[in-house]
Amino acid sequence: MLGSEDRAALESILGAPGLILDPPAMAGYGAAARYGGGAPAGVLRPRTTEEVSKVVAYCIRRRLPYVPQSGNTGLVLGSTPDVTGDQLVISLERMTGVLAVDLEDRTARVSAGVRLSALNAALEPHGLFLPIDLGADPMLGGMAATNTGGARFLRYGDMRRHILGLEVVLPDREGTVLSLSDGLRKDSSSLPLRHVFIGSFGALGVITGVTLEVHRRPTAASAALLIPHEGAILDLLAAVETAAGEALTAFEGMSGAAMSRALANVPGLGNPFPKGQIPAYAVLIELTRSAPLREREPTLDDDLEAILVDIAARPASPLADALIGPADRLWALRHALSEGLRAEGPVIGFDLAFRRSAVFPFRAAAAARVAAEFPEFEVCDFGHIADGGLHFNLVPREPGPVEPARLAALRDCVHSLAVEGFGGSFSGEHGLGRANQDAYDRYVPPRVKSYSAALANVFAQAPVGALRLGPRPGDSAC
Amino acid sequence: MLGSEDRAALESILGAPGLILDPPAMAGYGAAARYGGGAPAGVLRPRTTEEVSKVVAYCIRRRLPYVPQSGNTGLVLGSTPDVTGDQLVISLERMTGVLAVDLEDRTARVSAGVRLSALNAALEPHGLFLPIDLGADPMLGGMAATNTGGARFLRYGDMRRHILGLEVVLPDREGTVLSLSDGLRKDSSSLPLRHVFIGSFGALGVITGVTLEVHRRPTAASAALLIPHEGAILDLLAAVETAAGEALTAFEGMSGAAMSRALANVPGLGNPFPKGQIPAYAVLIELTRSAPLREREPTLDDDLEAILVDIAARPASPLADALIGPADRLWALRHALSEGLRAEGPVIGFDLAFRRSAVFPFRAAAAARVAAEFPEFEVCDFGHIADGGLHFNLVPREPGPVEPARLAALRDCVHSLAVEGFGGSFSGEHGLGRANQDAYDRYVPPRVKSYSAALANVFAQAPVGALRLGPRPGDSAC
Repeated sequence: MLGSEDRAALESILGAPGLILDPPAMAGYGAAARYGGGAPAGVLRPRTTEEVSKVVAYCIRRRLPYVPQSGNTGLVLGSTPDVTGDQLVISLERMTGVLAVDLEDRTARVSAGVRLSALNAALEPHGLFLPIDLGADPMLGGMAATNTGGARFLRYGDMRRHILGLEVVLPDREGTVLSLSDGLRKDSSSLPLRHVFIGSFGALGVITGVTLEVHRRPTAASAALLIPHEGAILDLLAAVETAAGEALTAFEGMSGAAMSRALANVPGLGNPFPKGQIPAYAVLIELTRSAPLREREPTLDDDLEAILVDIAARPASPLADALIGPADRLWALRHALSEGLRAEGPVIGFDLAFRRSAVFPFRAAAAARVAAEFPEFEVCDFGHIADGGLHFNLVPREPGPVEPARLAALRDCVHSLAVEGFGGSFSGEHGLGRANQDAYDRYVPPRVKSYSAALANVFAQAPVGALRLGPRPGDSAC
Repeated sequence: MLGSEDRAALESILGAPGLILDPPAMAGYGAAARYGGGAPAGVLRPRTTEEVSKVVAYCIRRRLPYVPQSGNTGLVLGSTPDVTGDQLVISLERMTGVLAVDLEDRTARVSAGVRLSALNAALEPHGLFLPIDLGADPMLGGMAATNTGGARFLRYGDMRRHILGLEVVLPDREGTVLSLSDGLRKDSSSLPLRHVFIGSFGALGVITGVTLEVHRRPTAASAALLIPHEGAILDLLAAVETAAGEALTAFEGMSGAAMSRALANVPGLGNPFPKGQIPAYAVLIELTRSAPLREREPTLDDDLEAILVDIAARPASPLADALIGPADRLWALRHALSEGLRAEGPVIGFDLAFRRSAVFPFRAAAAARVAAEFPEFEVCDFGHIADGGLHFNLVPREPGPVEPARLAALRDCVHSLAVEGFGGSFSGEHGLGRANQDAYDRYVPPRVKSYSAALANVFAQAPVGALRLGPRPGDSAC
């Protein structure tokens, strides 16, 4: 609960519409996108960087805990308060003042609260887009803070690759505003400070503005579902990468179990497989081109077909079967997987990442462990195979709640196998929040944790001092 | 000069071949790649990460200043000692123990002393390469520390985009070895610590190993020289980007003055222009594809020709003239520019970067200032126009040394115009070293400098503490 003095002070910074204290009106800011969430002590809604700065400075001086929140589409409780009711939410939803597209630079500058869909709507008339492909429609500040990847990472990479400038408000008594290299593609004139904040899940400061490199929107896309032979998926990936070159934009794996749930539970989704027979595993591949087609050129569909016919004809081909397009329908299946699983009750989701070569060995080992030790769950996984990303989802075979101790044992089992057994990550692309505090404590190496804490300390105060360029150590480094 | 006790201790770590103290033998480690350099107090040549760790720890404890040096191909005196003779060089040239290519992961793991050419030689039989295209042949540790870009940045980006893992020795009394996420494309399980070290010019630690994502080597390349109409270069860039899409790998600007010097001074370089008439400005563009050609497809040369014919035929076309390939010959001209300038005496080089739209306005303003205030110099620039990179080189019209005060005035004039006048960077891609200490002191914002120093402090000691994931501020951030 916010005291009357704090309330008056915050209202004087933000104005009445900038402050929400009514519990029903706050509920949406407390609830997480999928599961869980908590109760805000209040919701602060700044409209400008200056207001963010004043609000942060006030909270720091008064020791009021706060959680920055932009689109609140994350899955790790990184943008919602806990259940104590003690924590404020700083919502960036009204930070939508800047959305400036620069066609000559092929860049866009946005305030943190601008949604991905709004940016892409502004870019579309110019044949441009931000090629981060996500199921949700987050705000760009949160995307920078999480360093989101997505389904077309293989071709376009993560948010980091696109960020040419960042504005951030630091958690110190002045609410220091740091503006970090705005719009330059090449800049080595200082330490790469902006990269510390990208993917820092809000722990180092509140991102208030982003400058992004944007790309030519594809002029054509073709997609296919590939059925690999058992154990041949990496050979298939290599064959497709070699044959398609820069045209390949996605290589998305889907288990039969996940596809079955989607086809059973998501209305309007056509079963693309012959006789409706869902295979044990399928891969959605997509080829795109961003240059217009010229005369005498084969279409992208022709291209895709030629590639697949060639791969299928090889001796010991990794490809058992393939179905070409339509792209929309195939992507609809891919994008329905999460919804298909959730339709039958809560899903125990793991956002794992591995070296490519470890994804399927882990998957086999983990499925065996689950079958032996947690037979009440079914593995319904899918993943960004070319990027090593694996959404290892477990769906209870019977409805009803899962006991907390059982859930904790399951999480430990999967995480330890992923991290310790296969050199993987317990958080591939969803970032860090309260939901994975346990895994962070347990699996992140102690040195990485202690340097991370020290890094957070740097930006929580206003330091002084000068960096010497030249020989170090002790006597001259700083 | 190294005392006998230090000498014995370092020799016991490195063995006799690991320590060079003989001045003639040390000379190469003191001289910079192009101009300047100094004299080492000694050269330490570790072969393993463990030896680097021991040597760094020893130097820190004994307060012996050192400079890490890998390929020593840099241009900013970042890897050479000064003239005092007090500074040790830690050369990474013997750190060549690991060069492991993983075909399934499409990654390579290398020790810091492996040269770019050696990596590419190992990758070539597999149809792979690291697509960082530089004039020099640096070592990969230095490339990571500098975050090198190069001539194909437009398509492939900088070193940062390719680095999936980093091993670094920190400047503390233990020579702490930090190993940061080895080989994962997606990993958001901790703060992005490795990105702090990429492009940190050795100031935060000595990079000893790198894991890199590598790419399919192009199967075809076509190039052309384009002569833009005056003032139309950004229109030309937009037209080429739209028409060529993902095939465009380079858009390199060359002034007539720079091309003239190259053609006059570099033997064996053919003049590609009709009647040998060098235009005021030309752009080298390159299209590549990494997928093999299939039947009925036009070749990349056909593609390039069609694109250029189409652009030339437009009303108010930005394209005045164009010459297609051969690619080798056109790149030979591009790569000869630096040598062509240096053939006539020392060059005053500026490695600047801008937003794309500011490159030519700056260029015009700077040329006018030079003509008015420094008429003894001729502007002979070239640049990575699509990336905003501008190598603004000044060549003395008459031979002979340039007075230091005059040189300082010239540097101030160009830097202040670039940074303050046009929002640019005084160091686009060459990094930071003694050569640009003055510019760093003057043009980097005080806050960025002080946070950079604080960041360096974090890694110069072994911190303790834990980062809380969740609400901050004061009472809970760290």
